[in-house]
Amino acid sequence: MPASIPTTPAIMSANTLKSHHAQWRDEYDRLRSLSLSLDMTRGKPSVQQLDLSNRILNLPGDELCDYHADDGSDTRNYGGIDGLAAVKRLFGDILGVAAQNVIVGGNSSLTMMYDTLARACQFGVVGGDCPWSAQAKRKFICPVPGYDRHFLITEHLGFELISVDMHPHGPDMAQVESLVAKDADIKGIWCVPKYSNPNGACYDFATVQRLASMPTAATDFRIMWDNAYAEHHLGDAHPPLENIAEHCEAAGNPQRIIQFASTSKMTHPGSGVAAMACSEANSADAKTHIAVQSIGPDKVNQLRMLKLFGNLAGLRAHMKKHAALIKPKFDLVLEILEQQLSALGIATWSKPQGGYFISLDIADGTARRVVQLAGEAGVKLTSAGAPFPYGKDPRDRNVRIAPTYPPLQDIRQATEVLTACVKLATAERNNASAASN
Amino acid sequence: MPASIPTTPAIMSANTLKSHHAQWRDEYDRLRSLSLSLDMTRGKPSVQQLDLSNRILNLPGDELCDYHADDGSDTRNYGGIDGLAAVKRLFGDILGVAAQNVIVGGNSSLTMMYDTLARACQFGVVGGDCPWSAQAKRKFICPVPGYDRHFLITEHLGFELISVDMHPHGPDMAQVESLVAKDADIKGIWCVPKYSNPNGACYDFATVQRLASMPTAATDFRIMWDNAYAEHHLGDAHPPLENIAEHCEAAGNPQRIIQFASTSKMTHPGSGVAAMACSEANSADAKTHIAVQSIGPDKVNQLRMLKLFGNLAGLRAHMKKHAALIKPKFDLVLEILEQQLSALGIATWSKPQGGYFISLDIADGTARRVVQLAGEAGVKLTSAGAPFPYGKDPRDRNVRIAPTYPPLQDIRQATEVLTACVKLATAERNNASAASN
Repeated sequence: MPASIPTTPAIMSANTLKSHHAQWRDEYDRLRSLSLSLDMTRGKPSVQQLDLSNRILNLPGDELCDYHADDGSDTRNYGGIDGLAAVKRLFGDILGVAAQNVIVGGNSSLTMMYDTLARACQFGVVGGDCPWSAQAKRKFICPVPGYDRHFLITEHLGFELISVDMHPHGPDMAQVESLVAKDADIKGIWCVPKYSNPNGACYDFATVQRLASMPTAATDFRIMWDNAYAEHHLGDAHPPLENIAEHCEAAGNPQRIIQFASTSKMTHPGSGVAAMACSEANSADAKTHIAVQSIGPDKVNQLRMLKLFGNLAGLRAHMKKHAALIKPKFDLVLEILEQQLSALGIATWSKPQGGYFISLDIADGTARRVVQLAGEAGVKLTSAGAPFPYGKDPRDRNVRIAPTYPPLQDIRQATEVLTACVKLATAERNNASAASN
Repeated sequence: MPASIPTTPAIMSANTLKSHHAQWRDEYDRLRSLSLSLDMTRGKPSVQQLDLSNRILNLPGDELCDYHADDGSDTRNYGGIDGLAAVKRLFGDILGVAAQNVIVGGNSSLTMMYDTLARACQFGVVGGDCPWSAQAKRKFICPVPGYDRHFLITEHLGFELISVDMHPHGPDMAQVESLVAKDADIKGIWCVPKYSNPNGACYDFATVQRLASMPTAATDFRIMWDNAYAEHHLGDAHPPLENIAEHCEAAGNPQRIIQFASTSKMTHPGSGVAAMACSEANSADAKTHIAVQSIGPDKVNQLRMLKLFGNLAGLRAHMKKHAALIKPKFDLVLEILEQQLSALGIATWSKPQGGYFISLDIADGTARRVVQLAGEAGVKLTSAGAPFPYGKDPRDRNVRIAPTYPPLQDIRQATEVLTACVKLATAERNNASAASN
């Protein structure tokens, strides 16, 4: 979990930093001379992870009845707008809601999120007075650092994005409460409640309870609860997550919460199955629109997923195989960060228990320089600023590390380049500050 | 092809009709006593048609490289928002456009149509001044009878629906031209250019040419060209379809046309592959939105389809197998209509060369009664009025027949019930008219 972040290096003095500059420049130049070509930009499963699910490429199989659902219906033909009953149950179990209020979609939960907000803009939502686009202004809360694709959806749909700070146990709730209480233009908040992208935050009891019960000036406020990593633990021990639907219900705000999940990072990312879950009223409302937009989702693909996993226990056993492949990668990044940076006190980083990212915070004003230096040394990193609204990190200090895709040996080299760049950029920044003082 | 339609029975006199009433009532009662339970409501492929593609249920297969695209990319992972190159080429060949301007989507072309128009409402289109929803009014032309799901999309998105008559070679172009020339609120027209749903119309040269070149008051007029049955011929001979994209280009209206197609009725309807095709500018514009809405379509499913068909020749050979299964069903319906109704002169009907429907026109004011009578005799038909805007057939005379799904023996019984209902309803109507005169 990220501790407090150094705005200026805490342990090393300016003079000590200065004395290391030449040494760190040499270290960087040596790594640069290796002409590496490594990529740590994307939160993608590795080829080995994909191979875990290759059996799905032969499923459901063409033997008699293999393409029938539990209820005897033929998954190959048209029919059914919200998914197979067994898939609704499976996602209901993952998200802690009744199967009847689950809507199973296509291959992308992001598309379900976009469509949910696009519909809110065009048609309005349960409990609202008018389509959101009919309001003069609309705003959305973005805990930062967060997931760039979330922020992009709301930016694209015309929302003003309002940053609040992320902590190890969720967004800064004092900031959130204060904003939503007084501004009716604020229509919602993005949340990745477990192993948040990128800082690994797991929302604790108080955060969930406060999100569910906080007074909001908007009568139609929505929490976009992207539980993308609900089952994506790195080890056996993992923090529990409160059932936010129950908290919302108890607080008298049952319409506030819309949950999302998918099997994208369980099976194959391009061909997974996505789902959303919400109150009965929200679900009925969504279906009035979805029934016009679609004849129905790909049920054969849902059946494939069911046949691969069997049930929730099977899914969880499968996810342990993913963990076995990616935990060593996370461990290696953390080990090198510790070795190279810990004693210097020039950075802090998250130590996630699940998910796909490590979030690295370094001295203010150095993140873009680090990404640039790494790129010049052949290591592609996620653009600095990407996890912030409008792609701008106001303190230019956050670097997102995505360790899942590259092989272990690449991760070692890439992380060594990264730490060398952090050191060099910090020293450069120190020199520049000294020069301007 | 539908000839001119009788508003009152043309051949039988009122008196003759009256004399048949009791006989037709007996005939209907006899069929009703059979306690049938038959369904001709939906344009769905039959189980035998679905079985033609069952090999796809084992594809792409999990052997090494079976999940790689032509360009070597791994279809299992994230990446690519507009589809595999080979699939873009295939749809480009079907629709007569360059592969680069094809966008491959998910399992439903209907969803691509909805999204296209929803985007036009929210963001506007190339060549337009503002989002369509920012206008006080918006209207859409619906050739009738037509496809209920098309009309529903535009109704749901707030368009006023304007009916124009369908003829055997396309919509009544004099009506269309006159409407669009003077009303800038009219933003587009729905077209199923080949084997139109339900009347089987195939747009001829003049229709395509006039659609492409007609002056429109709206600067951002769009033709929604749903070429759903492009490859769905019943026999070897089939009418050519002009390349509307070329006509639009030649007429200086390259942005006017947006085409759609899918493999839904080629492989398995719930898990097919859909695509759209349009000008470079339209395609670029669509992709700026799709890139926010989606990480990318299901590429593994695209690969499945490629492996099943191989290429366009393979696809066409496959479609001949569909024709072999469904042509006898169309022939049987037409044979019974001919036997039972032709001599009476109380109905006309289409004789399609492809597609999924036969359109039956009967005396004004009898269609709902026929559907009701058939239902009471155990034969479910598509609701009367469904192929018209707002579900209302102004003359209450059109019945849509969907012969593909039921087995041949069911089709014989169902069509016999249908023709008995037509006769009885016509006689009833004749009596009622006589009584009120």
